[in-house]
Amino acid sequence: MINKVAITGGTHGNELTGVYLIKKWQEQPNLVHRENFETLLIHTNPKAIKACRRYIDKDLNRSFQTTQLNEEHDHYEAKRAYELNTMLGPKGSKNPKVDFIVDLHSTTANMGLSLVVSSQSSLTWDAVRYLCAKEPKLHVYRWMGDEEDAFVDSIAPHGFAIEVGAIPQGVLRANLFTQTAQLIYHLLDFIQRYNKHKNIPTNQNPIEIYDHVKLLDYPRDANGDITAMVHEQRQDRDYQKITKGDPLFYTLAEKTIYYEEEEPLYPLFINEAAYYEKGFAMCLTRKITLT
Amino acid sequence: MINKVAITGGTHGNELTGVYLIKKWQEQPNLVHRENFETLLIHTNPKAIKACRRYIDKDLNRSFQTTQLNEEHDHYEAKRAYELNTMLGPKGSKNPKVDFIVDLHSTTANMGLSLVVSSQSSLTWDAVRYLCAKEPKLHVYRWMGDEEDAFVDSIAPHGFAIEVGAIPQGVLRANLFTQTAQLIYHLLDFIQRYNKHKNIPTNQNPIEIYDHVKLLDYPRDANGDITAMVHEQRQDRDYQKITKGDPLFYTLAEKTIYYEEEEPLYPLFINEAAYYEKGFAMCLTRKITLT
Repeated sequence: MINKVAITGGTHGNELTGVYLIKKWQEQPNLVHRENFETLLIHTNPKAIKACRRYIDKDLNRSFQTTQLNEEHDHYEAKRAYELNTMLGPKGSKNPKVDFIVDLHSTTANMGLSLVVSSQSSLTWDAVRYLCAKEPKLHVYRWMGDEEDAFVDSIAPHGFAIEVGAIPQGVLRANLFTQTAQLIYHLLDFIQRYNKHKNIPTNQNPIEIYDHVKLLDYPRDANGDITAMVHEQRQDRDYQKITKGDPLFYTLAEKTIYYEEEEPLYPLFINEAAYYEKGFAMCLTRKITLT
Repeated sequence: MINKVAITGGTHGNELTGVYLIKKWQEQPNLVHRENFETLLIHTNPKAIKACRRYIDKDLNRSFQTTQLNEEHDHYEAKRAYELNTMLGPKGSKNPKVDFIVDLHSTTANMGLSLVVSSQSSLTWDAVRYLCAKEPKLHVYRWMGDEEDAFVDSIAPHGFAIEVGAIPQGVLRANLFTQTAQLIYHLLDFIQRYNKHKNIPTNQNPIEIYDHVKLLDYPRDANGDITAMVHEQRQDRDYQKITKGDPLFYTLAEKTIYYEEEEPLYPLFINEAAYYEKGFAMCLTRKITLT
């Protein structure tokens, strides 16, 4: 039984889709009310939202390491992670405050409607299958991640992040705003049916997912500054296969750099603004079928 | 005679096209060298570039009021404005340090290749006509602005800003990067020919420009927070006519707000990220023909 679902937004304060969906539903709670569980609406990073910045001191969505959640910290996002874990977790508990977290993000990459799933829970994956059946445009990126970079949704037993794009930081785009809302309504419907029937009225067909392989950085100089940008023939082609010899980067000195890997893979998060400082230009994934 | 041209970038530190074009040309100065004038390359806002933020204390591109340029100030951008005016101006001088400033910007709006022209100098407008002939995709936005909001290029007798988009803040897009570089090469060629021939080998045909009429804000609540976003049928339609009854905004409460003006106008800078805080959703312009 799922008793409490948390919809969280503004984990990155300049990703306005989540910020304003939470605000919308705070004003119209009936839209996210379902009869057999409670829905919580939470702005996870109020100071960053106010400043319209990704973060104040550090990336909140990489701040949920179990070891660190048990200590108090000086910088803002670590404090918020501690508070959120107290409010919604605690992480790893058999009796957490909420059962499911869906964390709302946007990306400057052309990711359309995407889920980022780092959970192994079968309920989470049943929800993913249900959403794939309801929304054929949906893409699923599985990144088991690592404890070092643990996400907001890792403090509940079930959950994932929604990533929509392309949306610039600090901007709302009406079409993706509406589509994200619709995805949440499907998710809440799924949980309601799950609670009612205790079986999962879902798609048992195989689904295609994009499984994380590795991160790929920009070419950089000795100071760590980028010396090339994503090639225009790769820009916006998230979820499209890249094959050895395809143009990948274009340098400031006007040279094309080609993809060199033997294995064709599927790039995601291509040219995401927030990842310049993290040191990657895209994620490379393998497309697999989950049965 | 034009003796010195300044190409400036990074006035807004998160508009990377200008930041990296300056860097590119610092490494390959031959690309912007011409035989009969000097080209200066300047990162106008180094601290904001380092932080990858629009500004540190206030918008540098609204900091060139003559009255304020003559005083020293505490906050960072006012200091930089003072320094830049000393280095490139002084504003209004008959004998300024540079003759022409072209300031490189990007926008999250779908503005393609645009010039923002606030100068009345005939050389500036000859350059504009030349560029329009060389680059048929180019749009020209004329905003005489006001002394209150004076731009970087206002400290030289001639000049304008280049705005390219849609580009998210903190991102390079290779196609628009290359197109912006090409526009600069055309401009430098024009100035070289102007210096050589003292007449202007340019397009004497009429050009179409978009003349500033007014700014249009988002609907907002009592706290000043937006309550609607740009309607999906208006998003990305910069330079396309809007007529009474056309969808304009879409509220968080799911209502469409329509354009109400009797006069059809042409919106620009639609949904530019940096203008949420400035209090406008788009600029409305009138399309006119300059002969």
